[in-house]
Amino acid sequence: MAFSEFQPLNDKSLVDYIKATPSLSSKLKDHLDNLTVKEVGDGNLNFVFIVVGSHGSFVIKQALPYIRCIGESWPMTKERAYFEALALREHGRLSPDHVPEVYHFDRTMSLIGMRYLEPPHIILRKGLIAGIEYPLLADHMSDYMARTLFHTSLLYHNTTDHRKAVAEFCGNVELCRLTEQVVFSDPYKVSEYNRWTSPYLDSDAEAVREDNALKLEVAELKSLFCERAQALIHGDLHTGSVMVTPDSTQVIDPEFAFYGPIGFDIGAFLGNLILAFFAQDGHADEQNDRKAYKAWILRIIQNTWNLFHKKFIALWDANKDAGDAYLPAIYNNSELQQLVQDKYIKELLHDTLGFGAAKMIRRIVGVAHVEDFESITDASKRSGCERRALEFAKLILKERRKFQNIEEVVSAVQQIQ
Amino acid sequence: MAFSEFQPLNDKSLVDYIKATPSLSSKLKDHLDNLTVKEVGDGNLNFVFIVVGSHGSFVIKQALPYIRCIGESWPMTKERAYFEALALREHGRLSPDHVPEVYHFDRTMSLIGMRYLEPPHIILRKGLIAGIEYPLLADHMSDYMARTLFHTSLLYHNTTDHRKAVAEFCGNVELCRLTEQVVFSDPYKVSEYNRWTSPYLDSDAEAVREDNALKLEVAELKSLFCERAQALIHGDLHTGSVMVTPDSTQVIDPEFAFYGPIGFDIGAFLGNLILAFFAQDGHADEQNDRKAYKAWILRIIQNTWNLFHKKFIALWDANKDAGDAYLPAIYNNSELQQLVQDKYIKELLHDTLGFGAAKMIRRIVGVAHVEDFESITDASKRSGCERRALEFAKLILKERRKFQNIEEVVSAVQQIQ
Ligand SMILES: Nc1ncnc2c1ncn2[C@@H]1O[C@H](COP(=O)(O)OP(=O)(O)O)[C@@H](O)[C@H]1O
Ligand SMILES: Nc1ncnc2c1ncn2[C@@H]1O[C@H](COP(=O)(O)OP(=O)(O)O)[C@@H](O)[C@H]1O
Ligand SMILES: [Mg+2]
Ligand SMILES: [Mg+2]
Ligand SMILES: [Mg+2]
Ligand SMILES: [Mg+2]
Ligand SMILES: [Mg+2]
Repeated sequence: MAFSEFQPLNDKSLVDYIKATPSLSSKLKDHLDNLTVKEVGDGNLNFVFIVVGSHGSFVIKQALPYIRCIGESWPMTKERAYFEALALREHGRLSPDHVPEVYHFDRTMSLIGMRYLEPPHIILRKGLIAGIEYPLLADHMSDYMARTLFHTSLLYHNTTDHRKAVAEFCGNVELCRLTEQVVFSDPYKVSEYNRWTSPYLDSDAEAVREDNALKLEVAELKSLFCERAQALIHGDLHTGSVMVTPDSTQVIDPEFAFYGPIGFDIGAFLGNLILAFFAQDGHADEQNDRKAYKAWILRIIQNTWNLFHKKFIALWDANKDAGDAYLPAIYNNSELQQLVQDKYIKELLHDTLGFGAAKMIRRIVGVAHVEDFESITDASKRSGCERRALEFAKLILKERRKFQNIEEVVSAVQQIQ
Repeated sequence: MAFSEFQPLNDKSLVDYIKATPSLSSKLKDHLDNLTVKEVGDGNLNFVFIVVGSHGSFVIKQALPYIRCIGESWPMTKERAYFEALALREHGRLSPDHVPEVYHFDRTMSLIGMRYLEPPHIILRKGLIAGIEYPLLADHMSDYMARTLFHTSLLYHNTTDHRKAVAEFCGNVELCRLTEQVVFSDPYKVSEYNRWTSPYLDSDAEAVREDNALKLEVAELKSLFCERAQALIHGDLHTGSVMVTPDSTQVIDPEFAFYGPIGFDIGAFLGNLILAFFAQDGHADEQNDRKAYKAWILRIIQNTWNLFHKKFIALWDANKDAGDAYLPAIYNNSELQQLVQDKYIKELLHDTLGFGAAKMIRRIVGVAHVEDFESITDASKRSGCERRALEFAKLILKERRKFQNIEEVVSAVQQIQ
């Protein structure tokens, strides 16, 4: 039989695949003539095809056994598609409004069929570069994060279900190792993959590699990442993993999912918003000085955290009897409940800041950069934006435990010149 | 075939089992007449048979699908024998001098055959009650803990091997849940299984259940226990899991083994030594006021921690290139190496104190008590010893982060009246 073993698909063989796959052809109401197929993968790792027919559409994402943007010289298990499908389904169950529906998964082919997020959906990062405001963004992202992270933590799980799920996602170790390398290691050492806006940031990159206090903190974060199975995290929740319209916010691409620290997801999202903030000066022109947009980004950061906090605690309060972490017979008075929740949220803020800062640093001096900065063509201007982002990230990473709330973080952002 | 499905063995059927099992009968050089078989299990969970023949001996440990000391009303997976055998072999490989050799494992029968720790080996707890000094105890236990914990942590493991092993031991969740209940939950709530020296400690037990600050700290420890896969820990390393002679120290009974926080093992051992210390006044008589012995116990506590620290760091220094936690290209100067190690050990001391204190508390107001106190027949005297131990444990659990070294802990023990 065709497709009984793995093969990379192209525009043509994909049509044959669809014809042979009822769960996909039925999505097109079996009108399989005149399909348009377009490979649009702009991400770093995989191939993404948009398939549109006269009676329906979907997206096909296929993982090949290497990293797309580097090539076959950097092998990477195609089993990542399995974990992406698992996570899309689990997070989709918990937050159906913000995760595209999975129509089909084929483990042999490392292939996922899912809802096509049709235009005007665009990648959030591109919207941020274009200076577009999304009025529901903080509300939607806080909702997605609160629901997915709460319900896969021990605040909701019993330890039997938790350890079973943890064990399953231990299988996604190759993707975790990629994060370990590119987020927690490479930026802090000489690595062939590192790059930065040279020569402007040469001494900044060197300073990162020689900052003992910074490396001490990074070690703590890496150990949390490698050892702490707090919840099923997305694992790659930057602004390139979110597609948006003014009404809709959809989280894609959880191939890095595993049971890890909650702050890694929130930090990835907020850290990338802060990168977008620092990039704005590079996008300012005579028509638009981007000042109002910078203020909007800061409001999104503040609202996302504060709404997350509120919703996460509301889920906790509504599910006091669920989960093995805090048994109601022990945490049995409101003063104690308050103490416990305050402590949880405070630690989560500190983790979030730490991971967020680490994610910022790696985008400036590590292998994979972000379009927010890359699209600033003037290297001198770009490096200025990057340097301010880097200074802020280093400060936050080292001093994160001094911050009591998100407002203090936002004012620290504003103080960087 | 006989024994092709699980059956609880008795003195008689055990002999048939041995005859049918070459790896066991060969240990007796096939001299199977006149075997003496004696069930000696004094532990809480399992059945242990000593088998002695004219040409050899061994111990057979069998897990039944419930908790021995409670009975069939408290079911417990017999698969724990599988994890005990795994851990005995892994820890035995890493610390062969201090773990009995496994001769045979039968998963169907939940049965382990291992070296018989012949007399004069006795359970350390009994030695501590009898007031016997073991000159090599601190040296041996620090060696066992440093080797087993270092080599199964990310200081030695790469993350691929680590996550694979973590996933495997996630299967031992039922035993983890037993710990969660009896160590981190029951003592802090009303539970049918709790008991204490009543009426003397009635208000002390109530105070534990109403101490918000204590419960806040216990939640943090429980979360570490449930979420942090730091190393393959023994999981039940009290003084009843150690057999000793003046020359030999052997760690048995790792059926609770899983990837958890290192401080849980060290804390279990040191916490139980502190219980032994506080029990001494109950064992004093005209011949022996136990003052010298109390000082010896404190020296063992101090030496065990300090030797552990020294050996753990020596292993780290000798294996700088191993393990994914601290890459030598990043942690590349001696000042940073020092910072990193000091931070690691300081946090480990605080974890150790927290878990040690929690293990003490549960032995005084929880379901399973220790012979150190139980053997003090005068209830008034017993409760006095227990109260001092409880006061110390509560103090340490709440204030553990203030302690910089083990000497400060030892002097805090001495200050409890
Ligand atoms: N469900 C979808 N609907 C529409 N476009 C999508 C969808 N999934 C992915 N894309 C497009 O494909 C790109 C790459 O997808 P992504 O899942 O991020 O792949 P990678 O893992 O390679 O980063 C996205 O940036 C987006 O433009
Ligand atoms: N290898 C051994 N050699 C000698 N005695 C042993 C051995 N293993 C266990 N025992 C004896 O059996 C008792 C119970 O064993 P243990 O492994 O602690 O079982 P449990 O899991 O029920 O606590 C020990 O306290 C000790 O007296
Ligand atoms: Mg992507
Ligand atoms: Mg769930
Ligand atoms: Mg991806
Ligand atoms: Mg035992
Ligand atoms: Mg046992």
